Amino acid sequence: MRIAELSRRSGVAMPTIKFYLREGMLPPGVRTSPNQARYDESHIRRLRLVRAMIDLGGLSVAAVREVLATVDSPTDDIDGLLGTVSRTLVDAPAAVDPDAMDEVRALLDGLGWDCPQGHPAMAALAAVLTAARDLGHERIIARLHRFAAAAELIAAADLDYVAAAEDVDRMLESVVVGTVLGDSAIIALRRLAQARESGRRYPLR
Amino acid sequence: MRIAELSRRSGVAMPTIKFYLREGMLPPGVRTSPNQARYDESHIRRLRLVRAMIDLGGLSVAAVREVLATVDSPTDDIDGLLGTVSRTLVDAPAAVDPDAMDEVRALLDGLGWDCPQGHPAMAALAAVLTAARDLGHERIIARLHRFAAAAELIAAADLDYVAAAEDVDRMLESVVVGTVLGDSAIIALRRLAQARESGRRYPLR
Repeated sequence: MRIAELSRRSGVAMPTIKFYLREGMLPPGVRTSPNQARYDESHIRRLRLVRAMIDLGGLSVAAVREVLATVDSPTDDIDGLLGTVSRTLVDAPAAVDPDAMDEVRALLDGLGWDCPQGHPAMAALAAVLTAARDLGHERIIARLHRFAAAAELIAAADLDYVAAAEDVDRMLESVVVGTVLGDSAIIALRRLAQARESGRRYPLR
Repeated sequence: MRIAELSRRSGVAMPTIKFYLREGMLPPGVRTSPNQARYDESHIRRLRLVRAMIDLGGLSVAAVREVLATVDSPTDDIDGLLGTVSRTLVDAPAAVDPDAMDEVRALLDGLGWDCPQGHPAMAALAAVLTAARDLGHERIIARLHRFAAAAELIAAADLDYVAAAEDVDRMLESVVVGTVLGDSAIIALRRLAQARESGRRYPLR
């Protein structure tokens, strides 16, 4: 297909597609004349992945470029690929209290989770511990293992979703879409489950 | 204590305390002279609750006033109180597709969750379904029951946390702090659990 059809089918505007081509975020099409090229289904999939990362994941163009460089390098390190994308989807705090970070490591050790060094979600979790303490709610910290048990169920469902994708581009797209939409779904379901549990514990007599 | 000490101990600036007094968000102290009043521990607790709702929960002053009006009316409807606070902590979308809303109702029915009518988290969940479909990831929807099972574990931990508080003000504070910090903790733990699960499924050979 020509670039106009690629734009129509992907829903991405032509100037944006041209920008992605210039930036190397979309592989060039097969040139059919000095100023025309032909694109195929792989370009549509790649555009979907790029838009998912930018629109849903809130990734910068630089971060997307970094992810795509990893995708496009020959590798059989699927875990490394998934991790690269997944790490970009964490809002890590700028600074972290080292004591809180030690507590996070102890929590993960206690759970038997062998987590990658320096994962930004560890810093995010440390920031929660610091905030809980500052608010006089450090009792929350002792209860995190119950949230961790729930997170294990969620992660197993997440990886099943990713594994069901047909190729690596779609696996990565599933990580982005599943993670970002999943966060919103989990938070909404938590509120509804709270309402249900509250109604069971405190029925109006 | 006098207002200066109340400010020092609560960490809330004097002009802010005076604003809360004028707005009826903080009950008046016991007047000791025409322009002095005495405050006690209940005022510190109330200030903590107000700050938790505004700073952590992102609630507007109007929403906080509404919550406090419910708290201060004599009631033994604990479920209603918790629900009032909890509903304000949902980012509900402005508009929702009615078909997606029907799907959410069917999902909750299937789970056997008897949810309060018009809970804003139902609209938030419906918005996720619409986004999943728009992105060609409607397969996510059939997998939400696994997230719901995790949400049940989380909600049980949440209500245990709330029930451990000494009085109604602290219960409500625990709802706000536990819900807002808990959201961040769950999301961070989900990322770490994903990394662990991915490492197990895709080890580098």
